[in-house]
Amino acid sequence: MFNNSNNNNNNRNTSDSNIRSIDSLLEPLEILGATNDSGQLMFLIRWRGTNRADLVAANVANIKWPQMVIKYYEQRVIFHPPE
Amino acid sequence: MFNNSNNNNNNRNTSDSNIRSIDSLLEPLEILGATNDSGQLMFLIRWRGTNRADLVAANVANIKWPQMVIKYYEQRVIFHPPE
Repeated sequence: MFNNSNNNNNNRNTSDSNIRSIDSLLEPLEILGATNDSGQLMFLIRWRGTNRADLVAANVANIKWPQMVIKYYEQRVIFHPPE
Repeated sequence: MFNNSNNNNNNRNTSDSNIRSIDSLLEPLEILGATNDSGQLMFLIRWRGTNRADLVAANVANIKWPQMVIKYYEQRVIFHPPE
């Protein structure tokens, strides 16, 4: 859903300590994309009032911001017609 | 995601009053499928301890059982490789 090949550690930080600091400082604005390149589902989350985005583990985002996660999926649902 | 053509009104009930009574009586076990045939996204939800399933509006299920809804989507995510 987004190309993860140009990782910039200043903008996309996935360590536990950084996720904790993000939690306390920033309010999520929207989910820009999702990736499982690392073997774990991650969301790229843009924060309100900044141009910053960070990868956050889905199992963290699911609990902290469930309605934002549901909105992300709902906007991308594809229904397949009956065979 | 499921074929809605054999609707049985005894098992699948979408009126507001029935959703309210379902809420108070039944605990959801799993989401069996999703449909937007009516123009509104609905989940077919199976209830714990019964063989009963009911269509519930997604905007109701999203609020009442967000983790079940997220699990449903997460299990069906398809990642497309870069072009």
